[in-house]
Amino acid sequence: MPDLHFTPGPTALYFTVEEHIKNALKQGITSTSHRGQVFKDIYKECANNLKLLMEIPDDYHVLITSSANEAWERIILNCVEHDSYHLSMGAFSSRFFKIADDLQRNASSLIVEDGTVPELGQIKPSTSDELITICLNESGTGAHIPLETIYELREKFPDKLIAVDGVSAVPVYPIDFSKIDTLYFSVQKAFGLPAGLGIWIVNNRCVEKAEQLAAKGKVIGSYHKLPEMVEKAAQFQTTETPNILGIYLLSKVAEDMLTKGITAIRREIDYKSAIMNMAIDEHPNLRHFVKEDKWRSKTVKVAETDFSSKKLIQYLAEKKMNIGTGYGQYKDSQVRMANFPTHSKEQVEMLVDTIAKFKP
Amino acid sequence: MPDLHFTPGPTALYFTVEEHIKNALKQGITSTSHRGQVFKDIYKECANNLKLLMEIPDDYHVLITSSANEAWERIILNCVEHDSYHLSMGAFSSRFFKIADDLQRNASSLIVEDGTVPELGQIKPSTSDELITICLNESGTGAHIPLETIYELREKFPDKLIAVDGVSAVPVYPIDFSKIDTLYFSVQKAFGLPAGLGIWIVNNRCVEKAEQLAAKGKVIGSYHKLPEMVEKAAQFQTTETPNILGIYLLSKVAEDMLTKGITAIRREIDYKSAIMNMAIDEHPNLRHFVKEDKWRSKTVKVAETDFSSKKLIQYLAEKKMNIGTGYGQYKDSQVRMANFPTHSKEQVEMLVDTIAKFKP
Repeated sequence: MPDLHFTPGPTALYFTVEEHIKNALKQGITSTSHRGQVFKDIYKECANNLKLLMEIPDDYHVLITSSANEAWERIILNCVEHDSYHLSMGAFSSRFFKIADDLQRNASSLIVEDGTVPELGQIKPSTSDELITICLNESGTGAHIPLETIYELREKFPDKLIAVDGVSAVPVYPIDFSKIDTLYFSVQKAFGLPAGLGIWIVNNRCVEKAEQLAAKGKVIGSYHKLPEMVEKAAQFQTTETPNILGIYLLSKVAEDMLTKGITAIRREIDYKSAIMNMAIDEHPNLRHFVKEDKWRSKTVKVAETDFSSKKLIQYLAEKKMNIGTGYGQYKDSQVRMANFPTHSKEQVEMLVDTIAKFKP
Repeated sequence: MPDLHFTPGPTALYFTVEEHIKNALKQGITSTSHRGQVFKDIYKECANNLKLLMEIPDDYHVLITSSANEAWERIILNCVEHDSYHLSMGAFSSRFFKIADDLQRNASSLIVEDGTVPELGQIKPSTSDELITICLNESGTGAHIPLETIYELREKFPDKLIAVDGVSAVPVYPIDFSKIDTLYFSVQKAFGLPAGLGIWIVNNRCVEKAEQLAAKGKVIGSYHKLPEMVEKAAQFQTTETPNILGIYLLSKVAEDMLTKGITAIRREIDYKSAIMNMAIDEHPNLRHFVKEDKWRSKTVKVAETDFSSKKLIQYLAEKKMNIGTGYGQYKDSQVRMANFPTHSKEQVEMLVDTIAKFKP
């Protein structure tokens, strides 16, 4: 049996990726010019498949970045003139604040305790805040902001732009794009692809904001200025030579997910999530780090261990199942396990059965 | 026979890449955490192999970017406070000027005619210029700046930083790094790798400059600030989840090139360059776009056609040999052909023999 990766990202490849890589090599995808029709068709198919799979409205643009980190930088440069407001609920979500601060925006942050998420009443951006940033799934703690909170924010603050970090959450959680302005993700988590590619989805409010900033003489970037990216994307082109293989693979995996059906994928995620939750609940030495059930991510499970988490990690590794350590300060006191579309029911059943037998 | 790609990039994969991809998949490289030892070892091996292959001094840092475009932006943000000076000799080299201008630096440019390169006497940066940028190989025109010009610039302007675009030139041209401050390249040209990865090599003068700018309160970036990149690279780490597969493949190809020997590779390049030059010289309907022999790139050959260049491209494509169109305005009146380490002598002999038989 080859090693199974339940790590929260990079993680196991989606089960069809290896075959798609072979086909890409056979077809010479890696040697094709990014200015030619073959590439344009790949980008177009990728954008279309993502739009179908994630129900992205037609007037949203699907742009190519190198990572979610890059999307953070591009969103601040293009969508914030002075003030931004960031919901921080762990290591990953709080980095957006850091990026805005690095770029010398007047950034403020609502920081909630690790393992919890901000509740609507706590979220109080000032009048001048132009952007609210939200991480759907904090991969560091396994906490998930209910989509309703985001939609209620839109109702409450219709004039502010809303940016959503979809890393490790999409395409599993169904998002109503009409209630957010931009969403970005990197592909090495729930899409199960090799790292090195980010997708940045924006609406025209973001583009208009960038145009306003540019008209005012603000720096909005260089090779990746939002209005130019959108203009190029309309021709299925990018400024730089992009990760062509990655875009091809994302397109194919999105197609495979469409063939399987997003409803079936979500049903499986729910089942696997339930048995993983149970495994944590029932083990005498494990506890959910996220105490509130409604805040627990379906896709990233974080358990506190009353022993050095290395022991469980090693025990599983000997059985060829890889799970993640806790993040940052929790490295030794927690484990993190992914429940992504590529993880089959059988694999997760084996994982939870094996965990049940573990004694520290 | 599979299609041969003599396109100037993306181009044919280095002939060992497919095997390395298979091994990477077998070893689970794409699922490994970028925070773990396996990744650190990959990055370390990649940096060490590049240092050996390209004779990069020990105190230069090998950093990971997503593309050469990104390197342009990072160099301006981190190494230029006010003024920069750019040698422009075609579409690619002139973009560095554009990037500096976008980032609101006071950028000036020496623009020479397409197909020529700047000569030492023409290069007159002002006293205030902090950076001189040079493209070793202009992939748009096939023109190459002699290394001596660069080294003489260093003598003449020891206080200015010198940035070299190595795309399509490295590792073929041997560069004396002690005479430049930074060099960057993307991997889809002379290294024959899938696109989506850039390498940015910097010395400590660049890092000190970035630190000075930061101390003065200038924005030097966010997740990819040079001093932090260098600090992380010392631990063989990156801020973002990088293109792990790309870094692994670059490491392996650099290793293969070391095994073959860079001298042997350069000897082959010289032979293939000579027969490609001859093919252009001897064909009644082709002419070198770069008139001066000493300015002709060894790795990117650009020929003017006295007919629509599509005809030659199509004629070769029917024989499963792909060459590039002219760049930009020269699309229909020129062809571009790569001579990279992956192109074997036999392949190039077949190409030139086939071109010799072509009648428009």
